[in-house]
Amino acid sequence: MKKPYFITFEGPEGSGKSTQIKLLKDFFAKAGYNVLTTREPGGTFAGDKIRETLLNKDCGNLEPETELFLMLAQRCEHLRKVIRPALKKGTVVLCDRYFDSSMAYQGFARGLNPSKISEIHHAFLGDFLPDATILLHITPEKGLERAKHNGAKQLDRIESESKEFHNKVFNGYETLAKNDPQRFIELDASGTAQELSDKIICALKKKFTDLP
Amino acid sequence: MKKPYFITFEGPEGSGKSTQIKLLKDFFAKAGYNVLTTREPGGTFAGDKIRETLLNKDCGNLEPETELFLMLAQRCEHLRKVIRPALKKGTVVLCDRYFDSSMAYQGFARGLNPSKISEIHHAFLGDFLPDATILLHITPEKGLERAKHNGAKQLDRIESESKEFHNKVFNGYETLAKNDPQRFIELDASGTAQELSDKIICALKKKFTDLP
Repeated sequence: MKKPYFITFEGPEGSGKSTQIKLLKDFFAKAGYNVLTTREPGGTFAGDKIRETLLNKDCGNLEPETELFLMLAQRCEHLRKVIRPALKKGTVVLCDRYFDSSMAYQGFARGLNPSKISEIHHAFLGDFLPDATILLHITPEKGLERAKHNGAKQLDRIESESKEFHNKVFNGYETLAKNDPQRFIELDASGTAQELSDKIICALKKKFTDLP
Repeated sequence: MKKPYFITFEGPEGSGKSTQIKLLKDFFAKAGYNVLTTREPGGTFAGDKIRETLLNKDCGNLEPETELFLMLAQRCEHLRKVIRPALKKGTVVLCDRYFDSSMAYQGFARGLNPSKISEIHHAFLGDFLPDATILLHITPEKGLERAKHNGAKQLDRIESESKEFHNKVFNGYETLAKNDPQRFIELDASGTAQELSDKIICALKKKFTDLP
């Protein structure tokens, strides 16, 4: 059986995660893998309801701990009911945001202690991390510019945060990647979608030698 | 200034908490207190959204940890934005369900370790417990019978749980009260609403000697 990889995508708003996930899905599908694409917050019925709350501007300034607990709630549901069962069946799982988003957003940007977040995540969700995490680098300015132009949709509660907040997210991601170079694949997200996809596939092939 | 008490009501479904909260509110108001009545899950805009998710039957069997994190999320918002600011202004707060519900429902009934729940609650929300907790005793059978007849509404996701689940909640509450007799006031919830209200006020006057 082909090894069912669990690969997560991280990066600031507008870094092109969803486009890259689609392109990577095509790569795995063509190589004969079963592939599931999913996202956080979300991925389940309850998770989508939690997502609505998290991104709802009418919720105003949620407490950092409230955000963290909402992220952990949806992740618990997602991991147990979707991600793990899929991996168990041999399906590759490509996930838009996961554990590192909680570290970058609720930790580095909102100011909760990252070690405390990691501790509670692992205490309740087990010692289970992605096989690889693709971190797409884009400056907060460029990312938000792209996010704004994506279908001209309204910015959500998190996207609407201050420039300072988005800079903290960006720096947080850099710290996370530096601390776990085995898992992280860092790539510059400027350039065309196809160029970036080629770079991602190349990096994954280097990392997982069984990939075709 | 009058001491702003924080009093929570706990008990199985249909134990008459909301009626008793109204009657106790009248008592405090007549005695010249400012009183706020609130409830969990809920109490804030985000909290009400979280409540909708928690009680939504379409969410199916949520993981125990998902329920716990949702309860902690709404509580964090509720405590920081509603309960503490009210107490600080000298307002008595009467709350329908609080910390002990997480212990009874997600702990004793869903099987999460109650010490772990207590630990995470206190780590993120501080060492802050109600001045008094009124535990209304009613057997799960009688309680659900009453809940069903309350405006003939549909039972929600938690109310619809098995008899075994509701028995565990009931036994869990008894254990909690036994372990903290200083804080808990246990009362039999059968009899009329007025009789029960008189008993609650009598017990509170005995506990808080400054009450009129």
